[in-house]
Amino acid sequence: MPGRFGGWGAAERSPSPGSEIFPLLRFFPCGSIFRGQHRPVLPIVRAAGAFATALVLSFAAIRVLIPFLRRRKWQQVFRGKEEVRDLADLHASKAHTPTMGGLAIWLGAALATLLWSPLRGDGIAVLAIFTAFGAIGLCDDAAKVFSRSSRGMAGRRRLLLQGMAVLALFFFLRLAAADGYRALHEPLLPLPFASIPLHLPGAVALAFSFLVLAGSANGVNLTDGLDGLAAGCSLLTAAALAAIAFFENSLGIAIPLVALAGSLLAFLWYNANPAQIFMGDTGSLAIGGLLGTAALLLRQPFFLAIAGGIFVLETLSVLLQVYYFKWTGGRRIFRMAPLHHHLELGGWPETRVTTRLWLLSALFALSALALYPWRACGV
Amino acid sequence: MPGRFGGWGAAERSPSPGSEIFPLLRFFPCGSIFRGQHRPVLPIVRAAGAFATALVLSFAAIRVLIPFLRRRKWQQVFRGKEEVRDLADLHASKAHTPTMGGLAIWLGAALATLLWSPLRGDGIAVLAIFTAFGAIGLCDDAAKVFSRSSRGMAGRRRLLLQGMAVLALFFFLRLAAADGYRALHEPLLPLPFASIPLHLPGAVALAFSFLVLAGSANGVNLTDGLDGLAAGCSLLTAAALAAIAFFENSLGIAIPLVALAGSLLAFLWYNANPAQIFMGDTGSLAIGGLLGTAALLLRQPFFLAIAGGIFVLETLSVLLQVYYFKWTGGRRIFRMAPLHHHLELGGWPETRVTTRLWLLSALFALSALALYPWRACGV
Repeated sequence: MPGRFGGWGAAERSPSPGSEIFPLLRFFPCGSIFRGQHRPVLPIVRAAGAFATALVLSFAAIRVLIPFLRRRKWQQVFRGKEEVRDLADLHASKAHTPTMGGLAIWLGAALATLLWSPLRGDGIAVLAIFTAFGAIGLCDDAAKVFSRSSRGMAGRRRLLLQGMAVLALFFFLRLAAADGYRALHEPLLPLPFASIPLHLPGAVALAFSFLVLAGSANGVNLTDGLDGLAAGCSLLTAAALAAIAFFENSLGIAIPLVALAGSLLAFLWYNANPAQIFMGDTGSLAIGGLLGTAALLLRQPFFLAIAGGIFVLETLSVLLQVYYFKWTGGRRIFRMAPLHHHLELGGWPETRVTTRLWLLSALFALSALALYPWRACGV
Repeated sequence: MPGRFGGWGAAERSPSPGSEIFPLLRFFPCGSIFRGQHRPVLPIVRAAGAFATALVLSFAAIRVLIPFLRRRKWQQVFRGKEEVRDLADLHASKAHTPTMGGLAIWLGAALATLLWSPLRGDGIAVLAIFTAFGAIGLCDDAAKVFSRSSRGMAGRRRLLLQGMAVLALFFFLRLAAADGYRALHEPLLPLPFASIPLHLPGAVALAFSFLVLAGSANGVNLTDGLDGLAAGCSLLTAAALAAIAFFENSLGIAIPLVALAGSLLAFLWYNANPAQIFMGDTGSLAIGGLLGTAALLLRQPFFLAIAGGIFVLETLSVLLQVYYFKWTGGRRIFRMAPLHHHLELGGWPETRVTTRLWLLSALFALSALALYPWRACGV
C-alpha cells in the first residue's frame, strides 16, 4: 500500500527532500540517455504533447469558428444604455464580436487530455465536470443568442444544474476513484508555516465541494467582461495549479490543466484586445469547473483561492455591491460591479484595466506557489 | 575542490537526479520545521525578498518619476510624418509620454540585488554591466531629450562604449571570479538530446561575449517600440533565466534576475497600454545587459537566444531589411522594420500586436525550459 492517498500521498513516502517536493523528477529524461539507466520519459513528454496538441487544435477550431459564428450572427447581446449608462458607450465596438469561443477551448483541451493523459478516475472526473459545466454554459449562451437578450438562463436554474453536476461527481468518485472521493473530504487548510487537513463529514464535504466549484465557475464567469481578462487570469491560475499537480505526482490532474493552458494561449491570440471572439459562458463555466475540480482533487481549494485571487476579488465585489445595496436601501460601494467595470468607469482605459489585473493575477499565482513548499512535507 | 566550475559544476557532484536538477531544494523550508532538522531557509526567502523589494522600490520610484519628468517635459521625441508616414499617425498620442522610466527599473533591481544577493564575483559582474549599460542608455536618452531629436548617440559610439564595458567585464572576471571567467570560455551548445560545451580561445570568447551582450541589449532596445512590449517580453525571459539559475544553484545570478522581474512587473503597471511612462534606452540597454551577462555566466547564451526569441526576431527583421535594401538597391522585405511596426502597418491594432508578441514570448520561454532538462546531466 503506497501511503494513505495513493497518488496524493506521494509526499509521505520518499525520504529525500528533492524527490519529496518534485516526485516527478525521477521521470525526467535526465540520466536515462546519458547514463544508460532506464527511466520512463513519459511525463514531461506527455505534458509538452498535451500543451502543443491543445494549442494547435484550439487555434484551428477558432479559425473555423469565427467566420461560422459571424455568418450566423451569434453574438453577445449587450445591455443597453438605459441599463448600464456610460459602459454602453465604452463597449459599443464589441457589439458584433461572435461569442461561444469556449467551444474551441473545450475541444482543444478535452481532445488533448484524451490523447495524452493516463485516463484514470481523477482525470475522468476533471474532464466530466469540464464538459458538464461547458454544456451548462452553452445552454446559457444559446438562450442569450436566440432570445436576443443579455439575460440568458435564470441564475437559480444555472446553480441547480451545477449542483446536480457536483452530486454526480460525488457519486462517480465514490464508485470509481476512492482516492479522489477521500480528497474531497480532506482539503488542506494552509496556516502560517503549516497546513492542516480538514476532516469534513459527508454532507459538509458535498456542500463545500459545491461552494468551490460553483464559486470558481461563477468567479471566472464574472471576470469575463473585458477583452482577454478572464482568459489571461485563467491561464496563469491553470499554470500555477499544473505546477502543484506535477509536484504532487498527480499526472491525471496535471495533464488537463496543461492542456487548458495551451488552449487558452491559442484563444488569447484571438481574444486579445480588440477581441475577435469571446469565450461566452461556454468557456468561462467550463474553465472554472476544470480549475475547481482539479483544486478539489489535489486537496488544494485554498491554493486555488489564492492563485485565482482575481476571481475571488471580482466575486466579492459583486456580493458586496448587491448586499450593501439591499442593506442600505439603494446605496452603492462600487461605481459598478464587478470590479473591472468599477475601474473602467473610474477612468482607466480598458487595456490598462486588463493588463493590470493580469499583473495582479501573476502576483497571486506567484504568492500561492511561494506558500506551497510550507505544506509539502507537513501532511 | 567542488567540481570544475564551482557554482556551475554542481550538476556533476551529487548522485540523485532530484538534487542534481534542483540543487537548491535542499535549502527549501521543507523538513526544517516539521522534522526538527536544520536547513537554512535562505534561498527561497532571498528570492521572495528580492522580488518584493524590487517591486515596491520601482513602483515608488515610478510614482515620483512620472510627475518629475512631465514637469521637465523629458519626453521621447518621435520621428515625423515625412520619415515614417502612417506610423506617425498611429503613434501621435504617445508624444507627451515621459521617457527614462528605466531609471526606476534600475534603481529597484539594483538596490534589491544589493540587499538580498550573496554578493560574490558573478553577482557583482551582473550588477556592473546592468549599471554600465544603463548609463550608456541614459546618455543616449539625454542626448535625444536635450537635442529635441529622435537620433540620440551615434550607433557606432554606443557600440564602442558597450565594447569597453565587455572588456572591463572580462578583466574583472579574470581578476576576481575565475569561475565566471571560465564560464565565458565554455558556453554550452544545445544539440538534440545533448549539450556540448564549446572551448573558445581567449579572443574568440571576448568577441562572442561582445556579440551576446551587444545583441541582447540592442535586441531589447529594438523591441521597445510599443506600449509594454519590451517590458513584458523581458519579464518572461528574466523569469525563464531565473529558473535556470536556480536549477544551476547560482544564487548570485538568480537574485538579480528575480529582482529584475519584480521591477519589470511594477514598471508594466504604468507602461501598460496606454503607457504613462516609457523605459527609454536607459531601461532597454540595462535590461538587455543584465540578461546577456546572466546568460553568459550561466554558460547558457543559446538558452537566452531561445527564451528571448522575440528579441532575436526583431533584430533579424532589422538586419534583413537593411541589407536587403542595400543589396537590391531600394526594395524592402517588411513594410517597416522592426517586426512590430510591420505588423502594425499591416492592420493589427497596437494592443493586438503587443499581446500576441507576449504570447509568442511565453511560448519561447516555455520551449527553452522544456529543452533544458536534456542538458542538465550531460555536461
